[in-house]
This record gives sequence, structure tokens and C-alpha cells, in this order.
Amino acid sequence: MIQFSNSIGKLTGESTLLYQDIARRVEKERGIKTINFGIGQPDVITFKEIRDKAKEALDQGFTSYTPAKGIDELRQKIAEYLSIEYKGSDVKKEEVIVTPGAKTALFLSFLLYINPGDEVLLFDPSFYSYAEVVKLLGGNPVYLNVNFDEKSGFSIDLEDLKEKINSKTKMIVLNSPHNPTGMVFSPSEIQGIQEISKERGILLLSDEIYDHFIYEGKMRSVLEDPEWRENTIYLNGFSKTFSMTGWRLGYIVAKKEIIDKMGILASNIYTCATSFAQKGAIESFNTFNHVEEMISLFRRRRDVMFEELSKIDGIKVYKSSGAFYIFPDVGGILERTKLSVKELSIKLIEEAGVITIPGEVFPLELGKRFIRFSFAIDEEKIKEGIRRIKETLDKS
Amino acid sequence: MIQFSNSIGKLTGESTLLYQDIARRVEKERGIKTINFGIGQPDVITFKEIRDKAKEALDQGFTSYTPAKGIDELRQKIAEYLSIEYKGSDVKKEEVIVTPGAKTALFLSFLLYINPGDEVLLFDPSFYSYAEVVKLLGGNPVYLNVNFDEKSGFSIDLEDLKEKINSKTKMIVLNSPHNPTGMVFSPSEIQGIQEISKERGILLLSDEIYDHFIYEGKMRSVLEDPEWRENTIYLNGFSKTFSMTGWRLGYIVAKKEIIDKMGILASNIYTCATSFAQKGAIESFNTFNHVEEMISLFRRRRDVMFEELSKIDGIKVYKSSGAFYIFPDVGGILERTKLSVKELSIKLIEEAGVITIPGEVFPLELGKRFIRFSFAIDEEKIKEGIRRIKETLDKS
Repeated sequence: MIQFSNSIGKLTGESTLLYQDIARRVEKERGIKTINFGIGQPDVITFKEIRDKAKEALDQGFTSYTPAKGIDELRQKIAEYLSIEYKGSDVKKEEVIVTPGAKTALFLSFLLYINPGDEVLLFDPSFYSYAEVVKLLGGNPVYLNVNFDEKSGFSIDLEDLKEKINSKTKMIVLNSPHNPTGMVFSPSEIQGIQEISKERGILLLSDEIYDHFIYEGKMRSVLEDPEWRENTIYLNGFSKTFSMTGWRLGYIVAKKEIIDKMGILASNIYTCATSFAQKGAIESFNTFNHVEEMISLFRRRRDVMFEELSKIDGIKVYKSSGAFYIFPDVGGILERTKLSVKELSIKLIEEAGVITIPGEVFPLELGKRFIRFSFAIDEEKIKEGIRRIKETLDKS
Repeated sequence: MIQFSNSIGKLTGESTLLYQDIARRVEKERGIKTINFGIGQPDVITFKEIRDKAKEALDQGFTSYTPAKGIDELRQKIAEYLSIEYKGSDVKKEEVIVTPGAKTALFLSFLLYINPGDEVLLFDPSFYSYAEVVKLLGGNPVYLNVNFDEKSGFSIDLEDLKEKINSKTKMIVLNSPHNPTGMVFSPSEIQGIQEISKERGILLLSDEIYDHFIYEGKMRSVLEDPEWRENTIYLNGFSKTFSMTGWRLGYIVAKKEIIDKMGILASNIYTCATSFAQKGAIESFNTFNHVEEMISLFRRRRDVMFEELSKIDGIKVYKSSGAFYIFPDVGGILERTKLSVKELSIKLIEEAGVITIPGEVFPLELGKRFIRFSFAIDEEKIKEGIRRIKETLDKS
């Protein structure tokens, strides 16, 4: 067999899928219905207004290529929306590229900058694709400490960040609200990272895909710094806010020269995002009433999940402030049961019929003591799932 | 400004866009309506049945992520279709991955295999993204001679191919029907390439995106070789055949181990293709009656374009057998006018208001004497455009 390229061997693959596979086996063998806390998308369908707009575009025969950077009208809407949302950001249409999903936005950003041997600073824990793509491109992920405290949640260690920056450091990846912890990092943490990255001439990639999933306090966007153009690449998408994961629509904001280069990459790698999906997305900016309803629903679910998880012995849980994840410290359970977090997750599927994602999927160290629970699932299932988990653990 | 990665500097960008820009300027300055022979997609909207199916999927709320390799039903349809079309190919669902367009299929294939320094054999001329992506990944494009004869058209030089294979050669990219020449290469040429690549243990990437645009004879697919799994990656998509360019749907066929690796890449780079677009594509296999009508229309246009081009002095034109391009040798005009082919194309936009693509966009040497004309445009415009070109050239 003809050999794959060297970088392919460095990929671990999407580890979350493993747990879905085990769940399927358990459902088949034991005839029980599993409950899925592994979900990474809202459990509502895309709002009707948006779907109608895409259907209208199909009716009108809007089925040809679009410009590589996306249709003008959508780029303009995004720029206007961000300029209102983050006063002083003054985002222009020319500073926006629409991509087939935020993952492609991430890939384009890494591809545009990373040379083999470059270091990219990532939170530990963080969304697994960051490290995967960095490695794929021959770069080296370097992990930043994230601290956990049951009372105050997760925090970024800015001193650790300063220490880990060296001449090979090309980029810092920021993500707030944060997957997997559900933390909305404080404005001072965000500003701290932005200041340090500017001072040291390092690119700051900010993935703000969960920006509307805020349950406590207010998030700070990197676009609130009027000097964002200096070193910032802002990433977002329609997937989570408007429950449009299947539409594959993300976007990048950066200064024009960067967006122009990305357009060239885009035209060679994927041409453009789906034409009529882009038309649909234009309508999304008129559906924030539905978004608010969804967030209220998610807040209630978070409260229920927090309350239920708090009843389990050996769990330290912080009531997350954003995204749709709770990331409890299960160290007490691991010590008692002598299991690794991965073994615990597998046990929960096999014995309780409940899917969770072990924190070690989000490398590197911190996750080994944590499990990610998604509350993008209805309240009754949250209660039932955690009841089953408690029952299983009480027996262990 | 923070430096881009080294490989980005090697990209030239999508050169065809330059000519659209000039056209816009000419339209504005001179108030004339340009005629576009630069078009790379059919000028009909996607067939209604396919659009209706996508709308139905939107109505049903099919708006979430799909598996990275595409929805099972579509992968199954593709496998069945190819197994019928190319008897003995016996393609299985597990050997198919659906991608967001054929360009992404191409990118995944290159990413999976190319190490820096690897050589990739490309026809000269060929679709510009092949060379761009090879260079982006640190590989080196090596060009194969394509010969031109006014009577018999374009042909592949198999001796040249054998000579250019060395220890660094990783892959040969085959494309038939061929962009930009409009040539359907002969079965013996396809078989010759396939035999040589198997013998020498080199990957054969076959881009068959124009497979339904056949006006003379019959094309041979690499899937007709029952041993295709040994070293073949087959690329196709819905864009051209069903006029679905804006849908961004392509696919790759290769043996299962390769497709599995591509699925891992996909899940890290783009997640999946648009969900409801995939549903629409399932319906496309029921619309071959429309495809046939479109091909008849295109055949008439080709005949008209050939006839009109033949009237121009200094042009040697072969009546293309496939795709929707005619690629005449304009060497006689270049000699007479002392223009390069690029200068000639610009002159045609500026003076005749007609957009064509100079062959040098499709590197490397051969194109310097040729211009690509697309006949994905209506008959009257074909006549009018070539009349204007003739008039302009008669004055030069």
C-alpha cells in the first residue's frame, strides 16, 4: 500500500466517536436506550425563518458558485452585526470571510501561518481539533495551565502563558466561552492574553463560537480591543447560536490583507460555502428572539444538571457560566474506583447506558480528572441520566 | 505584520479572476455588455427535483451534523451508481466519502499523501488548483507533455510519462474529459497510464468530474480496471453533471483504509458536507433525463463554437470531444500580433468585450499558445462573441 504522508500518522482521529460506538453496542446487546451527554450541538432544529430563506434561494435558483469569500450581503451583515455588538470594532465587509463551518475557518487560519516546528499555545484542556490540525501541519501544540477551583471555576494562568512564549511561538488559541469547561473567562483574563500577545508579536486566534451561550456575567470579545487588527484572528460561525451545524457556515474576521490571502487559499481548497445556505444565514440575524428562548431553556437545563451532579459523591462541580457543557472534577471517584477517566466513561456507558466524554479527549493533563457533560438535551433525560450514573457509582 | 507560512508565498491565486476584474472595468468604462467565455459551470439552475428534495430535508429539520464521510444513503447511492456504470468496479459504500465539493476531495487526497519534496505528475496543461495545492503542501509539480494535432486533438505522451517517473514521484493526476482542452482521452491512453502507475507503485488520482460531458466516442474510467483498488483514487462530484456547483458536493472513491483516513482528516478540517444538500444529491440519480437534455444542448453549442472559431485566421481548432471547453491554438495570431496569450486575452476583453482564459493559467508550456473558450453559454452569445473577436482581430 502506498504510504500516507508523515503528518497523517500524528493524528489521533475524533476520539469522541469511540464512545458513540460503544453506546451502539450497549444498546444492541442490552436492549437499553442510552442517554447522550456527549452532544456537541443544540438539540433544536434550525429556526424556521432561516430554513425558509434557504428554500426561497433554492426556488430562485441560487445554486451556482459564490465568491470564495462568501456572498457580499452576508459578509456585510456579519460586519454590521459585529460592529454593533462590539462598539469600536468597526468591522468592514472586506475584513470578513465566510467559510464552510468554523472548523474550516480554524484550518485556514492554521494553514496560513504555521510552519513546521512552530509552537502554538493551547489551553489544557481545549477542543481536540486545535492540536490535531497543528500537528497535521507540522507544528507543535504547547499547553497552557488552566486552574480549577470548585468555588470560582476555571481560570487562565497568565504567568504560565508568559513563561511558555519563546522564539518559536507563533500563535495563541483563545476560546471563551470555553469547550470543554463551560467557562466564560473574565474580561481581565481576555485582556491579559490580548496584551501579552500584542507585546510579544504573537498571533491571537480567538474562537468565540459559543458567544451567545452565556448564563452568568458578560463575555469579553477580542474585537472589543480597538487595536484588534494588529494581531487578531476572530473565529465564529452560525452552527451553535442558530443551531445550524449541518449548514456548515463559519466566518473569520481579520484585517483585509489576511482575509485576501485566505480567499486565495479558499479558492484552491474548497471554492466557497454552500450558496443557498449562505442566503439562509442572512436571515439568522433576525432570529435573536429564538436564540434568547433557547438560551433560557439551556440555562434551566444547566441548573438541573448542576443540581443533580452535586448529589454524587466524589464529584466537585462548578456551575458553568457558558457554552453547553459542565466539566466536573471526578478525581474522588477515580481514586475510589481505581479507574482512569476513560475507563470511568466506558463504565458509565456499559453499566448506566449514559454517554459522557472523558476529559482526556481534550488534551493534555487537566482533563484526566474531569468528564464533560453536555446539557444540550432535555431536562427529563438529564435527570434520568444522572440518576443512572449515581446508581451505578453507588454500587461500585 | 506577522508572517504567513512559507508555503503560502508559492500560491499564485486564482488567476481566472483577474480577467473578470478587467471585464468589470471595461463594462463600467465603456458601457458595453461583455460576453463571458470564461465560465466554469453549466448555465442552467439545478434541476427542480433535486432542489425540492433539499427543501423537503429543510422542512423535516435535517439541519444537524452528518457523519464526516457523508450520510449513508448518499454514499450507498454513489456506490451503486458507479457499480452499474462501470461493471466490475464493485464499489462499496465504505469505499466512498462525500466531500464539500470536488476541490476539497482533491485537497484531502493531496494532504493524505504528499510529503515535502514529493513529485506529482500533472498534464501540461491542467486545472490550476492541482499545481497550487501540490506547492502549498511542499510538493513539486512535474509536467507531462500533452501533444496537439489539429486533426486528432490532444494526446498524452506515455513515453514522456515513463521518463519523468523517479524515486520522488508519488502521484499522477489524470483528468479526462480534460480541462482545459475538452479532450476525452482514448481508452488506451487511460489504460496506459493506469498500467504504468501500477507497475511503478505510484498513486493514480483520477479527476472524472466532466464524465457526463461526452460528445464523441466513449470515455474510459479508471474504475473499469477491476484492480483499481491497488493504487487509484477516483474523484467526482455533483457540480457539473447536475449543475450543482453552489451545493459543494464532491466525492472520492478509494479502498476502505484510505477512505477511513480521509474521514479522520475530514472530521478535523471541515466536519461534513452540508446536511440538506446531501439529501438533495440523493435525488440527482433520478434526473439523468435532464442531464441528457443538457448534454444535447451543449453539443449544439460546441458545434456552433467550433464552426465560428474555424472562420478566424491564425487559429487551429479541434472540435473538443468532452467537458465544455474548446482550446484552440492561437499561435498564428500571436505571431502576427506579437502578443503573448495573456496580452491577447486582455485585448479581447478590452477591445471586443469578450472574456476568455489564456492557456498559461493552466501551467506550464503548452498553454502559452492556446486560449480556453467555455461553451456553457447560449448559442447567440457564442455567435456574437466570436463575431466580435473576429472583428477585433481583423483590425489588428
